[in-house]
Formats: sequence, C-alpha cells, structure tokens
Amino acid sequence: MQFNSVLENVTTYEAGKPIELVVREFGVNPKDVIKLASNENPYGTSPKVVDKIQELAKNMFIYPDDSMFELKEALANKFDVTSSNVVIGSGSDQILEFCVHAKCNENSKILMAKTTFAMYEIYGKQTGSTIIKTESDTHNLEQFSKLYKEHGADIIFLCLPNNPLGECLDKDDVYEFLETIDSETLVVIDGAYQEYASFKDEKKRIVPKNLIETFPNCIYLGTFSKAYALGGMRVGYGIAQPDIIQTLYKLRAPFNITTLTLAAAIEALKDEEFVNDCIAKNFEEMQRYEEYAKAKGFEYIDSYTNFITLKFGDKYISKQVAQELLQKGVIVRDLTGYGVNAIRITIGTQEQNSKVFAQLDEVLEKLK
Amino acid sequence: MQFNSVLENVTTYEAGKPIELVVREFGVNPKDVIKLASNENPYGTSPKVVDKIQELAKNMFIYPDDSMFELKEALANKFDVTSSNVVIGSGSDQILEFCVHAKCNENSKILMAKTTFAMYEIYGKQTGSTIIKTESDTHNLEQFSKLYKEHGADIIFLCLPNNPLGECLDKDDVYEFLETIDSETLVVIDGAYQEYASFKDEKKRIVPKNLIETFPNCIYLGTFSKAYALGGMRVGYGIAQPDIIQTLYKLRAPFNITTLTLAAAIEALKDEEFVNDCIAKNFEEMQRYEEYAKAKGFEYIDSYTNFITLKFGDKYISKQVAQELLQKGVIVRDLTGYGVNAIRITIGTQEQNSKVFAQLDEVLEKLK
Repeated sequence: MQFNSVLENVTTYEAGKPIELVVREFGVNPKDVIKLASNENPYGTSPKVVDKIQELAKNMFIYPDDSMFELKEALANKFDVTSSNVVIGSGSDQILEFCVHAKCNENSKILMAKTTFAMYEIYGKQTGSTIIKTESDTHNLEQFSKLYKEHGADIIFLCLPNNPLGECLDKDDVYEFLETIDSETLVVIDGAYQEYASFKDEKKRIVPKNLIETFPNCIYLGTFSKAYALGGMRVGYGIAQPDIIQTLYKLRAPFNITTLTLAAAIEALKDEEFVNDCIAKNFEEMQRYEEYAKAKGFEYIDSYTNFITLKFGDKYISKQVAQELLQKGVIVRDLTGYGVNAIRITIGTQEQNSKVFAQLDEVLEKLK
Repeated sequence: MQFNSVLENVTTYEAGKPIELVVREFGVNPKDVIKLASNENPYGTSPKVVDKIQELAKNMFIYPDDSMFELKEALANKFDVTSSNVVIGSGSDQILEFCVHAKCNENSKILMAKTTFAMYEIYGKQTGSTIIKTESDTHNLEQFSKLYKEHGADIIFLCLPNNPLGECLDKDDVYEFLETIDSETLVVIDGAYQEYASFKDEKKRIVPKNLIETFPNCIYLGTFSKAYALGGMRVGYGIAQPDIIQTLYKLRAPFNITTLTLAAAIEALKDEEFVNDCIAKNFEEMQRYEEYAKAKGFEYIDSYTNFITLKFGDKYISKQVAQELLQKGVIVRDLTGYGVNAIRITIGTQEQNSKVFAQLDEVLEKLK
C-alpha cells in the first residue's frame, strides 16, 4: 500500500536497551543489570509518588481528566505563568512532535546542532522538512547564526544542556542569539536537563517566564523523566505564549496523559527536596567518572547533565566497548549512530558506578 | 506566529466531563457523582490489574520497554497473529492518528458515517484532507458504496459497533462491501466496542486474523478502555499486515506507552473472566434502559455497546436534559454537537442506573 512519500525517509528512534532485553538475550539476572543508557534518575521514584500511584490504582477504569486542570495549575505556579502558557505532553517528546507538525511541511527548514537529540530530525523528516545541521557536534552559536542567515529556518532547536553530549550554552549567549532571530521562527529551548545545568552553574539557567516574555517566538520544554524520576510515566511540558500553546493543542489527541501519570507529576512537583538531593549526588558521583576518564587518558565532555560522554579517540571502538559491557549486564549508550566514537554513561548511584568502573576495567583490558 | 494553514480548520475534541469538574463547578460531593458519559466499564478495574500496578509503582524512574515485547506477544497470542501484525497506541485513538497521518495529505479523501467517532474527522482535518460523510447518521453501506464510487477515498472508517450511536453492521455485509474496495484504500475497522457486539450477536463478530488475511488493506483497532476497564491507562492496538504496521511505527514517538500501562494491559488480558462477567451484566442492565425509554415514549437505537442513545424527538431538548442532570451530579453525553437531539448514557451498575432513572424522572418533570 502507498503511504505519504515523506515517510520513506523516516527512520525510527533507537531507545536505550531495556533491562528485560538484556535478561532475555544474555541470561543476566535482572538484579545484576545496571541500566545507565537512558539518563534515568538512579535514586528511584520519590516515595510520595509511589504512595499516590498505589492509592489511585483502583480507579484506572475512569478516563483521565482531559483538561489536566490540576497539573497545569501546578506547573503554572512553579513557573509563575498562567495555565494558558502550559501544554502537557507524553514526555516533552510529544511537544517536540506538536511543534514540528504545527509549524513544518515539505517546504520548511529546521536548524539544529550536528549531534543533538535524535527526535528533532525524526519529527522533521515526518513532515518532509529540510534538516540543516551545524558542522560542530556541540552547540556553536556562530555556526547557527551563519546557517540561519544563509538559509533561514522555520524551527531552531537548542538543547540546553545538550543530549547526548552534555555541553551547555550560557543563558546570556543564548539571549544574544535570540535577538537576531525573526519572530516567525519558532525557537524550541529543550530544557530536559535544565535542573542539572542550573544547579551546577547559575549562568546556564533559563527562566521560562523571562524567556517567553522576552522572546514570544520561543517555547521552553521541560520533562519529568530525568531529575523528577518519572521516565516510566511519560510526561513533559511546554511553556510558551498562549497563541503557540493553543495551536499545539490542536494536535494533541484527547487523553494523551494517563491518570496515574498526571497524579504522579503533581506529587513529584511537591517533593523538590528529593529532586535537589538527587541532583547534588549526581554531581558528586560525576567527579568519579571524570577522574576515571583522566586516569585512563580518555577525553570527556564537561557535562551539565546526569550523564557523561567518554570519547575513545583511536584507543577503542565505542561499539565494541558498549557491546562487551552489555554482555556483562551494564547498559550504556554507544554514540556511533550519532557519528561519534564515544559512549554515553548515565551517572548511577555510588554502588552502580563502582561496578561500572570494575566492569569497564575488564572490558578495556580485553579489548586492548 | 504563522502555523500550517490546515490547522485553521481543526477543532479539538470535547471529552466527557470529568468528575473533578462537576465537583468544582456544581459543588457536588465526589461520592455522589455518577459519570456515565465516556463509556467506561462501571465495574471498576480488575483486582489483578490493581495488584500489578501497586507492585510496580516503585519502578517509575525507569523508562518503559520501548519494544513493548511482552504486550505485543500477548496480543499476538490472543488474536492468533504474530507480533509483526501488532501496533500499540496510547488508546486506539493514537493508531487512528497514525493511520490518517501516514496515508493522508491535502489531496486526500476520507469517507465515514455522518455521526461517528469525532476523532476521525479531527485527525483528517489535521492533514487537510477532504471529509466525505454519508447522509445517514448510522452506518449505511449502500451510501458508503455510492460515495466511494463517486469520489474514491484514501481511508474509509467503519466503526463497528458505532460510537456514539450504538448500531452495528453484520460481518457478512461488511465483507461484501470490502470486496468492492480498492487495495490502495486503507479501511479502518474500529472495534473499540467489538467485545460487546460479538457477545450480544455472533453475526457482528469481526475476527482480526481473518479480516486482514482476506483484506490486506484493512486494519482492525481494539482498545483496553472499554470492556477491559483501563480508560485511565490509555492503551489500544491495531492488527494489520506487516507493511502497514511498519509504516505506522514510523509515526510512533518512542515510549508512547507508560510502564504501568503496559503491565496493566498484559494483566487485563489474563483476566477474561472479569471482562465477560462485566459484559453480561452490561446487557442485563441495558434492558432496564430500553424499558425506561419505552415507558417514556422515547426512541432509542438498538445498542451493541455499553451505552444507549435516547432520542428526544420534539419532546425535550437534549442539551437541557444533559445540563440539568449534570447539576445533579449525573454526567451523560449530549449529542447536540453531533447534530442529533439525543443523549448517550453509558450503562452503569445496577445501583447507578436506578439513581439515573430517578434523577431523569425529576429532570423530565421539570422540563415538561
């Protein structure tokens, strides 16, 4: 059967391998699997969230509140905006999808860094848009500016900090760049890891309210999947001016968020202490990875997230390292598919990280 | 900001009002609200599902298994097909969305009954497609054939049984119609309420395996939101030939189903006894609505679902009846927006239905 021809060029996202798969394929005991491939919060779900889910489980025959009244209010309060500035998606992923499908078609151009979140390009290709990437792997605003002047763009994606590499632009530099962008260009500021970046360095902090008041063509995206430890629940949000929000809602399917997810997100927002505690531990543990990399002579990218990218240069082949670790039950992300000979490792708990170093030692010895 | 011009004609879906809204707006005690507007299973969630959700709640920091391996296997087993015939969506809604976006664009035509599930048209308009509807409110295959010969169609939607009216075509008539349809036309058989229809009358039963083997241009959609009592969890599925499934997966965002939802659906499939018991009770209780309608002299549509449509003719205005009931905490669906002077009531539990009759008596007396 013939489908829309633009789909011929669409590839699908390759998710981090789930624990179940490693158990099935390599016969590793589920308890021994260390999953550090998807930048989940390794400290688990807030106990307050767990209690709420257990309390509500019996009500799952009822549809969710499609107005998402309470979660919108909670987010509006958190960011000092109104509900009309908030859109909620099944992960911030879904809001990326809304943005691209609302704005783009076969005549559109989308500008992004060479190595950044894969879904920007996948959603772009779904609409038949032309994808324009900087030469630099990491975000380089001079290159963004040059390409924008040359080609224009319907959407610009800035991932702050950047996944899967970990670097982060300063807020002042971002604002200076945004001054030069036409009001008809939608700029998506993907803040999936902003909680980490702004904890580590105040200069990286993007304040959504200030952003959208200063630049009404911007949308800020946040997620509950990382610092808020709800990756399994699928919920993210966008903050923008009401005209953008209203348009995105036209692409939202009814009931796009489950009842338990709505409740979990509301509960998670109440437990900021848990979140801050997790972030603090993250950067303590990250130092161990930096020391490990230095000891082994690997380059790494200074990271403003909950993961670190180790580059192997001509010492090792990242695909082999990742595959060997997988067989030992340690799941990390090989970045070969992104054109980089590196692995991305989520910063785990102290105990997990110690095991990773031990396993990595063995793997590197074997592949030497 | 300018967005894709097709969005200008897109309206958004109006969901059945949630309990929370009635509590907020009319000050009704939540315990006294009877929600019979969204065709949920009133007998609640299977206890086995509740146990599973509670058990897994603590794992919500981990992303879902994006391969959906286990649920796909369970569905493939249930329908005697393979995993390559299965696509899973956030409700069967999301699979409708995939179908329309995969197949349609501004040059496309979509054929459907005049009064049927609202999302067919909403998704169609998102792509700028022309919507063609039969004159008849209910499904009339002669009219479908006539319009198909006249205009052709890229997609035909058959809702079997039909929501929001409740009627259902016989399988033999559907097959006879499908014989006349071009292999390039995608036919979506929406079986959201098939469990009810095939329980009431074997002639209505559509067997997905046989359907897609006989007509490779068909996709069968099912949901866990109705008989399986998981409306709050958002999960549905499509069964089709692998070429169709693979294309739809190109439009699926990663992690479109939460971990708890995947687990709940697998558990729900194991508890067929619960489902069958709910369906049997549904039709016992439906008889009471039929008797009530006859006693009041209202027309009703013979229903193969878990709801009944009461037509008021020139006796009452459905919008007023629905509004008065709402203020008493009884949420039903007014069908004025669908162009029909009728209300659709989900068949509740014995106790709920008795209360509905009492409240409806009062409302009708007041509006007489």
